[in-house]
This record gives sequence, structure tokens and C-alpha cells, in this order.
Amino acid sequence: MHSEFELITRYFTPDPPGPEAGVSLGVGDDCTLLAPTPGERLAVSVDTSVAGIHFPEAAPAAAIGHRALAVSLSDLAAMGARARWCLMSLTLPAADDGPWLADFARGFHALCDATDTALVGGDVTRGELSIGVTVMGEVPPEQALTRSGARSGDVLAVTGALGGGAGGLALWQRGERDLAHPLLVRYLHPLPRLAAGHALRGLASAAIDVSDGLLADLGHVLECSGVGAELTPEALPLAEGLVAALGERDALAAGLHGGDDYELLVALPPEHFATAHGRLAERGLALTEIGRLVETPGIRGVALNGERGWQHFSTGGTS
Amino acid sequence: MHSEFELITRYFTPDPPGPEAGVSLGVGDDCTLLAPTPGERLAVSVDTSVAGIHFPEAAPAAAIGHRALAVSLSDLAAMGARARWCLMSLTLPAADDGPWLADFARGFHALCDATDTALVGGDVTRGELSIGVTVMGEVPPEQALTRSGARSGDVLAVTGALGGGAGGLALWQRGERDLAHPLLVRYLHPLPRLAAGHALRGLASAAIDVSDGLLADLGHVLECSGVGAELTPEALPLAEGLVAALGERDALAAGLHGGDDYELLVALPPEHFATAHGRLAERGLALTEIGRLVETPGIRGVALNGERGWQHFSTGGTS
Repeated sequence: MHSEFELITRYFTPDPPGPEAGVSLGVGDDCTLLAPTPGERLAVSVDTSVAGIHFPEAAPAAAIGHRALAVSLSDLAAMGARARWCLMSLTLPAADDGPWLADFARGFHALCDATDTALVGGDVTRGELSIGVTVMGEVPPEQALTRSGARSGDVLAVTGALGGGAGGLALWQRGERDLAHPLLVRYLHPLPRLAAGHALRGLASAAIDVSDGLLADLGHVLECSGVGAELTPEALPLAEGLVAALGERDALAAGLHGGDDYELLVALPPEHFATAHGRLAERGLALTEIGRLVETPGIRGVALNGERGWQHFSTGGTS
Repeated sequence: MHSEFELITRYFTPDPPGPEAGVSLGVGDDCTLLAPTPGERLAVSVDTSVAGIHFPEAAPAAAIGHRALAVSLSDLAAMGARARWCLMSLTLPAADDGPWLADFARGFHALCDATDTALVGGDVTRGELSIGVTVMGEVPPEQALTRSGARSGDVLAVTGALGGGAGGLALWQRGERDLAHPLLVRYLHPLPRLAAGHALRGLASAAIDVSDGLLADLGHVLECSGVGAELTPEALPLAEGLVAALGERDALAAGLHGGDDYELLVALPPEHFATAHGRLAERGLALTEIGRLVETPGIRGVALNGERGWQHFSTGGTS
């Protein structure tokens, strides 16, 4: 934590977190000292967002800041962990970037505040714009939501709505710049489902966040758990405005394959679904059954509507 | 922890750390789950190394891997913390980089092994070569070596030898490629002083690692502790071969101003110096008194040899 760290302290920690946030010694020494909660597990993950690959360089700076943190926090949500701390490695192209950095910090900081995450370290270097965010959270042992606990017979469900990330990116690439458009909001301001992950502790048998696309991330869960899935594709909750923006066919493809949604995909024993649904409803979040887990490996789509051509989304199995 | 993480698992965690390393759930899920030691503080830091800024892009890949981890571990050493875990964000320019990556991983992994640090997460993205390493260590409360505990009357001391980092870089830039040259070893393979930091627990009143140069890093300690320093420059332990390579004048400048040494600069109450010296000697490491701390702010050099012109290294005070 060396070069140019005064940038961090100036823009990012005007009101440094203290003991109430589990920070025994804050930014400004060789390390930050944290006080983990006794008896809990520390959940850690890192994600790097690179301009032109993970987000458009011309996106609003506040959105870039928000998004870089959101994609990392989403991994904590998918473990059922409570967010505690984060560190940021910021690589910036130019030295004269005060206004951009202030906006970036505003977006980053707002999500820190909204999720009770304390920024406890970081560094700033020069080069192509990229942001690496390490997040740390906590979860009691045995309550973590892994990818490997799903069982045949479990309900497969997803929080919120799908396809908005891919839809928003498509609109952005077509030149849409109305930042209040619901799909741009979904793409530029994804909300890590931390409260949902926490509420699903003790109920879900497995969870993952939908970052690479529903089918890809479902594939990870199936592989880790040694099961297969039968999807009910007409149940797929698509993001608001998605069909209007992309047409039905591309909207469905965005929901199945599109990345950047950061919803949670969960497996639940059937007897837990109603409770889980109720807990998320209390938090204003939908939980939609989209299929069932089965013993036979692979993903099969159940084509209730022939026009939709679900079969070519099959990625395995014998259907 | 998403894209291309199979690269990490293939090259970096062929033998994944388990419960014996405090890892409850390893790489391959949304997060890694760690078991911190009850009652200890978690020391965290992140440093990013960018090609062309922090290291020459043409340096041996194994050295780049070693060095990227070493500079982060050095921050743990400077807190007196024991290294436990690390996460790596690797940004790579090309897709076809198997041999380079295998060498890089070998250097990174060897230092993990040597320091008992478990690699517990990371991601790989495409762009200009850069490596961000987040390190996590542990230290009991009240035993952490901060920058703010130094007191007037304390002995100022440094581990090992100084100027080797800057000297090695100068040689590299002149075209020296004998990787066994002591100065190139110092520059390319800095050793984080973790054992020394641990041994100084309970003895040193303050510590910092010398990454930006002795005077710059001493300045941080003085500012944090509210004291000044009188240096005894002829006592400065210069790296082996430094005077021969650079000449006396530039060698001294490298020792005072050169970065990348990653030795520890410590303040010690005088009655603790002999014990500290003895503990480090047992570990094969020198601890050299290079001055005293005083009440008057600033750094004063004591010019015993007029030819050396120490006065122009003064950075404050009234001398």
C-alpha cells in the first residue's frame, strides 16, 4: 500500500472506518488490521474489471466504481456471507483525473455504505484503466452456500430478473445514453444480492451468482454437485423492458446466456421453497422457480412452446 | 473469481491448500472460506506491480512472480504479522502464454512455499501485464509493529543491507543479465523479512518496510510518530557489490534514496537493541544501528566525513 495512496485517502476514506466496523488500525500503515468475528469463516474473493472488456470505458465514472465493487460483492452474496471489508487496486491512465476520480469514488463509496462494506486498503498505479477489488465477508461454518450441495429433486430458482445485464449492454452499444432506462440501470448498477444470500442461509442447498450467464453458471453448480437440471424456460423471469428492446427471441437468449445479471441462482429442497420465497418477498425481491434438479447429468429445456426452440439451448443429457 | 480461473488452478494450485492451512473451502466456489485464528488481528494489504513501472517487462517470468508476491508480503513483515493467505489478480497481454505463465507461477509458488502463504483465490484478465496481490496475515493485538510507536531516544536500525534494489535496477538498465550477480539477485528476488518482523514483536516500537527508499520511508515513521531522526550515515549497511558497481557517491545515494530493498526499518528502545540484534543474528540477518530518534522534527545527517556531503540529504529540521 504505497504509491499515491493519498489519492485513496482523499477520495475514498474521508471518514475512515473504525472499531465499529471491525477495523483496529485503518489505512495509513503498512497493513490494515481487522478484527474478524470469532467463530465465523472469512469469505474472500477478488475480481478485476478492465475497461473495454468488462465495461465500456466511456461509462459514467460513478457507475464504473459501483460496478467494480458490485461484481465482487456478488460473490459474497452467493456464499450467503455478510459483507465486511474490501481493498481496491486502481490502475488509472492519466494523472490529471480529479473529477473522474471523485465521481468514481462516489459510486464506489455509495455501494460501500449501502452494503456496510468498509474500504480498508488499496493502491493506485498508472496504466490502462482497471479496477481490482478484493472483498472479505463472514459466514458461520456450515451455513455457507456452496456450489456443491445441490441434490436431485431440489427446486431450481433465481432471484429478481434475468437478461437485463446483456440487454443493457446491447442498448449501450446501440448508443442509448438515457441512464434511467431500466436496462441501462440493470447493466450499469447491478445490485449484489447480499440480503437475499443471507436470507437463504439454512434453506438453500447450493447457490451461485449469475455473472457468466444462467446456463454457464448453472453448469458450474451441476458439475460441482453431480446432478442435472430440467429447465422450465417459460418461467424464466426476464428483465423489465427486455422483450420490448430486443424482441422475444433475443430477450430469451439474453436471459439464458447473457452475463452481468448478478442475480442468485439457487437450489432448494422443495419443502424450503415457500419459506425462501417469503423471506425474499419481505425484502422486495422475487424468487422464481425455473426448473428442477435431476439425477441425469446435463441441462434439458422443456419446450412447452415449440416456437421458442428451446432444444438448441440444451447443453447435454439425452433429450 | 470467474474468467479463466482454470489458468490459476492449473498453474498455481496443483496441490490446493486445505484445513491445515486454515482453508475451509478452497478455490472453485464463489469465494474461498478461511478460518482465522481466534483472538488474532487480520493484517491485510494489496500491492499492484505493473510492467514497465514496477519491474522490467523483460525480467525473467519467475522473478516477476516472486517479486509481485514479495512486495506485498513485505507489508506483513513490517507489521510483525505471520503470513497466511494471498489472492492474485493477474492481467496478461496474450492468450498463448503457457511457458511464461508456468515460469511466473513457479516463482510465485516457491515464495508461497518458503513463507507458508497459501494462494486462496485470484482472477485472470487480458490487458497490459500487471499483477495485484492481496496478502492476509495474522498478529496478536498489541503486538503489531505500527509506524506510530517510535519515541525520542529510540535506536533507529535497519535489517540486512540497503541500496541493492536500486543498484540492481541500474545494472539491469545497463544491460547486465547475469542473474547470479548479487545486485540483480537483490533487485529481482527481494526477500520479505517476515521472520525478522516476527522476531521483533515486543521489542520494536515502530517498523516500516523500505520500499520507497530509506529517507522517504523514515519520513513516514517520523510523521506518524511525531519525532525526528539523527542519522549516522557512515553506519549505513550498503549491499554487497554496490560501491564497486556504482561508485561510492551513487552507492550512498542508492542506500539513502533507492527503493525496492524491502528491508525493515525499525525503532527500538535502546535496552531492546541487543536482544533484537541477537534474535536476528540467529536467523542469519544483520540489524544495524543507523541513528537515533530525537524530539526535533526532521531528518539530520551527521557528517563525519565531509566528502560525503550528507547535508544535502537533510529533509527538514534546523541543522
